[in-house]
Amino acid sequence: MTTAPGARRVQRYDVASLLDVAVRVFTERGYDGTSMEDLARAAGVSKSSIYHHVEGKEHLLRLALERALDPLFAVLAEPGATSGPSLGRLEHVLRREVEVLVAELPYVTLLLRVRGNTGTEQWALARRRDFDAEVVALVRAAAAEGALRADVDPALATRLVFGMINSVVEWYRPEGPRDARSRSGLRPDAGRLTDGVLTLVLDGLRAR
Amino acid sequence: MTTAPGARRVQRYDVASLLDVAVRVFTERGYDGTSMEDLARAAGVSKSSIYHHVEGKEHLLRLALERALDPLFAVLAEPGATSGPSLGRLEHVLRREVEVLVAELPYVTLLLRVRGNTGTEQWALARRRDFDAEVVALVRAAAAEGALRADVDPALATRLVFGMINSVVEWYRPEGPRDARSRSGLRPDAGRLTDGVLTLVLDGLRAR
Repeated sequence: MTTAPGARRVQRYDVASLLDVAVRVFTERGYDGTSMEDLARAAGVSKSSIYHHVEGKEHLLRLALERALDPLFAVLAEPGATSGPSLGRLEHVLRREVEVLVAELPYVTLLLRVRGNTGTEQWALARRRDFDAEVVALVRAAAAEGALRADVDPALATRLVFGMINSVVEWYRPEGPRDARSRSGLRPDAGRLTDGVLTLVLDGLRAR
Repeated sequence: MTTAPGARRVQRYDVASLLDVAVRVFTERGYDGTSMEDLARAAGVSKSSIYHHVEGKEHLLRLALERALDPLFAVLAEPGATSGPSLGRLEHVLRREVEVLVAELPYVTLLLRVRGNTGTEQWALARRRDFDAEVVALVRAAAAEGALRADVDPALATRLVFGMINSVVEWYRPEGPRDARSRSGLRPDAGRLTDGVLTLVLDGLRAR
């Protein structure tokens, strides 16, 4: 009676820690450059114990990318994103997007680096385009309501705003040892980071 | 009398076209993953004819990175960057930075992807940090003059602004065939791109 729940607990832990290892190795070496041998070595387990949990490398990639995409799409369904004036909905989506990025940093990093031609990579790229299109639509709606400036094309503005937000994965390391990329010591907490992004995106650097 | 200038012209052309090839191959395969054989094959010449122009792979990398770094640092010495109120100087530097990025797109792309441990890569990373520090100093000066908002840390603001500007290399293709990354068809001309970046950075999306 005690072994079954224990075994399940171990199995759940294994899938989660396998994903943690896989996302790190995929990001470092690229998905194409990673073999099941690489994953087994990095996880300290045999290939057969990986196949006990997942169908293979592409299944691991899909699980890792879902861990970024599912919460991003969940944001679009939140009440703050679906009711009220478009500017408030846009602000909610951008704020929560930064929060998801920080909460799932390695997984969003992997998502942003996906480039390849497997079905899973193509699926992730299509999901990113769907997400981007939803945000462009919000920007257009807010512009039509007169809440956004009219002198920057909504598609360009969205692309630039995503550029700013997504660049956070390149340097933001909320914990752990400082690597060469965070040598500046710049480590705002997640709240200050999110506020800073929203302030700059909506109102810019210039004092009013 | 006609052969000597012709020969010099061919030689100059060769170094320039060699750099064009090298920057493309370095960006696609990574510097570590590129051999002199790869470069010779991509350029359609022999290795010995490459060694006729440059000392080796790291010399080519240095020449390519200088083609991004030299014009960026030249911006910091321009009159618009060295006189007048700090906000105007900052605006000049950011505008010219976007212009250099567009003018030297493949070279700035390579610069932004440099990560490695060779002397040349470490030198380029140090130069990038020097450039960033100059811009942070301008942001601090403009904030001290009351021209910038006081509620976003200057180091964070600079990092985010660079994130937006540098993200342009990921999708901006002013000419040539559309690849998967530019499927959206978003192709502002360089002037509209630069104006859009400056407007968003200084004043944000929100209508006043």
